[in-house]
Amino acid sequence: MSTILGQNQYGKAESRVVRITRDGRTHHIKDLNVSVALSGDMADVHHSGSNTHVLPTDTTKNTVYAFAKEHGIESAEQFGIHLARHFVTSQEPIHRARVRIEEYAWERIDTCDGESWSGTAERPRHSFVRSGQETRLAQITFDGESWEVVSGLTDLTVLNSTNSEFWGYTKDRYTTLREAYDRVLATDVSARWRYRWSGDEPGEDIPVPDWDESYAQTRRHILRTFAETYSLSLQQTLYQMGTSVIENRGEIEEIRFSLPNKHHFLVDLEPFGLKNDHEVYFAADRPYGLIEATVLRDGAEPRIPVDLTRLR
Amino acid sequence: MSTILGQNQYGKAESRVVRITRDGRTHHIKDLNVSVALSGDMADVHHSGSNTHVLPTDTTKNTVYAFAKEHGIESAEQFGIHLARHFVTSQEPIHRARVRIEEYAWERIDTCDGESWSGTAERPRHSFVRSGQETRLAQITFDGESWEVVSGLTDLTVLNSTNSEFWGYTKDRYTTLREAYDRVLATDVSARWRYRWSGDEPGEDIPVPDWDESYAQTRRHILRTFAETYSLSLQQTLYQMGTSVIENRGEIEEIRFSLPNKHHFLVDLEPFGLKNDHEVYFAADRPYGLIEATVLRDGAEPRIPVDLTRLR
Amino acid sequence: MSTILGQNQYGKAESRVVRITRDGRTHHIKDLNVSVALSGDMADVHHSGSNTHVLPTDTTKNTVYAFAKEHGIESAEQFGIHLARHFVTSQEPIHRARVRIEEYAWERIDTCDGESWSGTAERPRHSFVRSGQETRLAQITFDGESWEVVSGLTDLTVLNSTNSEFWGYTKDRYTTLREAYDRVLATDVSARWRYRWSGDEPGEDIPVPDWDESYAQTRRHILRTFAETYSLSLQQTLYQMGTSVIENRGEIEEIRFSLPNKHHFLVDLEPFGLKNDHEVYFAADRPYGLIEATVLRDGAEPRIPVDLTRLR
Amino acid sequence: MSTILGQNQYGKAESRVVRITRDGRTHHIKDLNVSVALSGDMADVHHSGSNTHVLPTDTTKNTVYAFAKEHGIESAEQFGIHLARHFVTSQEPIHRARVRIEEYAWERIDTCDGESWSGTAERPRHSFVRSGQETRLAQITFDGESWEVVSGLTDLTVLNSTNSEFWGYTKDRYTTLREAYDRVLATDVSARWRYRWSGDEPGEDIPVPDWDESYAQTRRHILRTFAETYSLSLQQTLYQMGTSVIENRGEIEEIRFSLPNKHHFLVDLEPFGLKNDHEVYFAADRPYGLIEATVLRDGAEPRIPVDLTRLR
Repeated sequence: MSTILGQNQYGKAESRVVRITRDGRTHHIKDLNVSVALSGDMADVHHSGSNTHVLPTDTTKNTVYAFAKEHGIESAEQFGIHLARHFVTSQEPIHRARVRIEEYAWERIDTCDGESWSGTAERPRHSFVRSGQETRLAQITFDGESWEVVSGLTDLTVLNSTNSEFWGYTKDRYTTLREAYDRVLATDVSARWRYRWSGDEPGEDIPVPDWDESYAQTRRHILRTFAETYSLSLQQTLYQMGTSVIENRGEIEEIRFSLPNKHHFLVDLEPFGLKNDHEVYFAADRPYGLIEATVLRDGAEPRIPVDLTRLR
Repeated sequence: MSTILGQNQYGKAESRVVRITRDGRTHHIKDLNVSVALSGDMADVHHSGSNTHVLPTDTTKNTVYAFAKEHGIESAEQFGIHLARHFVTSQEPIHRARVRIEEYAWERIDTCDGESWSGTAERPRHSFVRSGQETRLAQITFDGESWEVVSGLTDLTVLNSTNSEFWGYTKDRYTTLREAYDRVLATDVSARWRYRWSGDEPGEDIPVPDWDESYAQTRRHILRTFAETYSLSLQQTLYQMGTSVIENRGEIEEIRFSLPNKHHFLVDLEPFGLKNDHEVYFAADRPYGLIEATVLRDGAEPRIPVDLTRLR
Repeated sequence: MSTILGQNQYGKAESRVVRITRDGRTHHIKDLNVSVALSGDMADVHHSGSNTHVLPTDTTKNTVYAFAKEHGIESAEQFGIHLARHFVTSQEPIHRARVRIEEYAWERIDTCDGESWSGTAERPRHSFVRSGQETRLAQITFDGESWEVVSGLTDLTVLNSTNSEFWGYTKDRYTTLREAYDRVLATDVSARWRYRWSGDEPGEDIPVPDWDESYAQTRRHILRTFAETYSLSLQQTLYQMGTSVIENRGEIEEIRFSLPNKHHFLVDLEPFGLKNDHEVYFAADRPYGLIEATVLRDGAEPRIPVDLTRLR
Repeated sequence: MSTILGQNQYGKAESRVVRITRDGRTHHIKDLNVSVALSGDMADVHHSGSNTHVLPTDTTKNTVYAFAKEHGIESAEQFGIHLARHFVTSQEPIHRARVRIEEYAWERIDTCDGESWSGTAERPRHSFVRSGQETRLAQITFDGESWEVVSGLTDLTVLNSTNSEFWGYTKDRYTTLREAYDRVLATDVSARWRYRWSGDEPGEDIPVPDWDESYAQTRRHILRTFAETYSLSLQQTLYQMGTSVIENRGEIEEIRFSLPNKHHFLVDLEPFGLKNDHEVYFAADRPYGLIEATVLRDGAEPRIPVDLTRLR
């Protein structure tokens, strides 16, 4: 045959698992969307349809639910590590597993409002409201020898209402944009960061990160740097955010951002005899600027793919 | 002609306006999506295409932006009242205006983390992160004489991990559901409540509500009642939430809920030799139960339309 | 208690049923999304949580699948009639059933390309590609005595690249729009039409419509009138489309349209030394005009709700 | 500084351009969504915010509209080639341009229905209805020396109601799936194919493809192979589709597919005393199998990225 099989992977995508843990009357919740992609010795199924080497995607889904019981869900990253190791070590034809996880955050519903609880037993704490801010992301890849963990977040929408300028740019025949010395800067932060840690075998020198703490601190550095940077371009803000993460989080080797410039256009109110002194903006949908870049620790190799968003 | 024109309305939908207010170095933000629908003496434009009575939808959009400057945006409801009054009182052919507003919430980015600010000037406060929880809704209708204000919220996702049962229901030939004595109860709350206030003319006895306070308290009652109700059916929880609002908020005459029952199915782990003691759930997408009802103050007339969601 | 229960309904929404019918090697497909809403003697479940009168939403879902087998799916409307009759007549506490159906269209994949089929048996015809044009809609309501059938379509996107003008409109202080004598007119047609037929009992004078033929012809009249109308306003086009349907389809009493004016703005190319002679347009997202109206047969009562789209 | 800048790119995403061409009373329409990403000597803007090398994204948008006038839109690929060449050759700091285009298809509204046109002039042909099937994709990359064109399609939804089996797979502790000997096979085809052509300079041996014809034929081979393959696994169907394209289209070097296995589960009707003989299916949303693979011409290098869908 004149064709050959290239890279291939398969698995169950978007298994929605919710794990409740009961600590007396206090419940805890983990809410994940898990996608598994397996690769290996899969030529036969492509060429002849023989499924001898194929663990059904239905089984990968079942494994997600079973592992939520057997291992619990300490963090998205740790859960993905359990899953990826299992597939690669338990099935000979599977040489590589990649587990992608979205995590949705929930906050407790506060039913006290500062009042004391008059019941005789411990106050129940089993009620949650979903926090609609960013979605937390984790991608765990294992090839039987080494690990790669890329964590991230998406849809963290932020806005500075001042301290942003844009001027001094190249002008060509098609340039009509007027320079701005005080503009709104808004974006939906999408970021992925890769951890230095690559193995969990004894003898490793690099400690396993505290995944939850690392996530919380990375998010904090991104938000804080966005707020505190006096911005001359979104690229500059991006680079500052990346530098802040790399400099403060030794466990992270590189970080990539995809930042849509969510344009807020100052509305021209002069036709109505009104002056718009940076007060009234039109929030546009499309088109939008899209600024993407990787910031690396000096000496690190870039491994996060260039396009975080779909090829489409 | 054998056909006649029935109810009709027109206007600009989804004008996205962001209003920044500067109080020294502390900025405030209001972020709205405004839709205007006008009705009146509009037979000609339908029959002959004569636009003599038609104020362009582009003008209704311009008015939204101009009013954001002229009147500011104190609350979604107050802003809608300004707009609706303007269209009805300034254009003779327009007899009725309905303004629908979605409001998106933003929280300040805290750049202090408890540390003191070492700068010489006031610490800047112009950075925001969008709160992704519910969207606030307001609908203001004015016919030249009286007002109707229906406020609400949508996409407030809540979950109780216990204190929910479902049993004792009717069984017919097609019933296979097993009774549940401890289930997860989750829903995306969509609610609309109608205010008693119907006029802003001198001599009115009913005070204008404090729209923001009313919203905050109504939301609080909904959340708290959801959390505290031991539920035997989602209908019961709905009615409790409605009653809590009506009994505590004298300014509200009726409230309607549309509550999808977001099923969380306990995963059967027995085939894997595991016991699932209310720990691992599959969060399903479709189909879902849909529970809808109005709760009224005794004596109030129901005016909120039955279908909050689209006919489709 | 100071609150009373208003209109309420419940049921399973969005049951996705695909029905395959085999006619030898030629297969047929029906692809529906079915939502059931039941009302009746439901005070108890709201007040006390007693489910004695409640047929579970899970059962309404099961019934959809069982009826797809027992009755087949002749048309969305006929299928909805079977379901609505069943719920109202088989369950004493249920007094009213409303069934809403979305239908997705599929076309056969043509594997012949005009060539003859060389196989020994009949050529297989079991392959389909989904047609992405409009979604067909049907809503069937039964209260035990009379029927109401409202059919429709949504997301039928159409565009005229000329024969549309807009001028002669009212101008006020906030009007900046320039008159247009040759513009693009584009919309996503959303329409609902109500049938005259209200009963299927013997002795009825009004024949049951041929639902599929009525749908096809109504769609054809809408498309053709959109194309052939020289438009001075979208309202005029809307009214012409409605009139065309009412005058040509005696089985239909009223039709309501919701037509977003999908703005296509002529791009100003003068800064680049280019003339834009109705050639290059920017297709905008938001805001958009929204034109809504009902067209009735003379003497008919309007019963289609005003807002086809969500209150939100 | 301890950080370094890695891969970066910027530009305007999702410029929506509609181009009308008038050929007498017959109009033609092209409807594109164009995203530009530029790379080059951009260190300064990231480090200091200096925009000296930055052509504003607003200018890239303007260029899209101006080029639609100056060059017309012969095909998405040809239009992208004009744009990419312009950015790289006209701006010294820009070393690489990538243009991604989505194209939406429109069909003419037929207003004849086989009847003759009674008007005195040529029948107008300026009315269109959007075809909702797949979205056509094109990605053009130019680095000043060579070209890469990757075309594709997405959201082409197809279904075989028979001739699909799935059995003989690996079973482990977590396997519960029952083997299937006659199942529905459905997927949303997402495909990208890379052309052999890499230059348009004189002296090149490889002819420029006929982009539209190549698209039409590639789509036809995909559809036909999907329909005609008796499938033992979706991987097998994928490989057959890829082989059909590579073998029939000499201009294409490699093709990658991302195929969600859109599960249609046979509903168990036995509890209702009914037999489901491959008639009634539940169309599930999530989770879904996801099958991805590249098929290459023997000797070709794989260059299409592994993940067509978002990292998320």
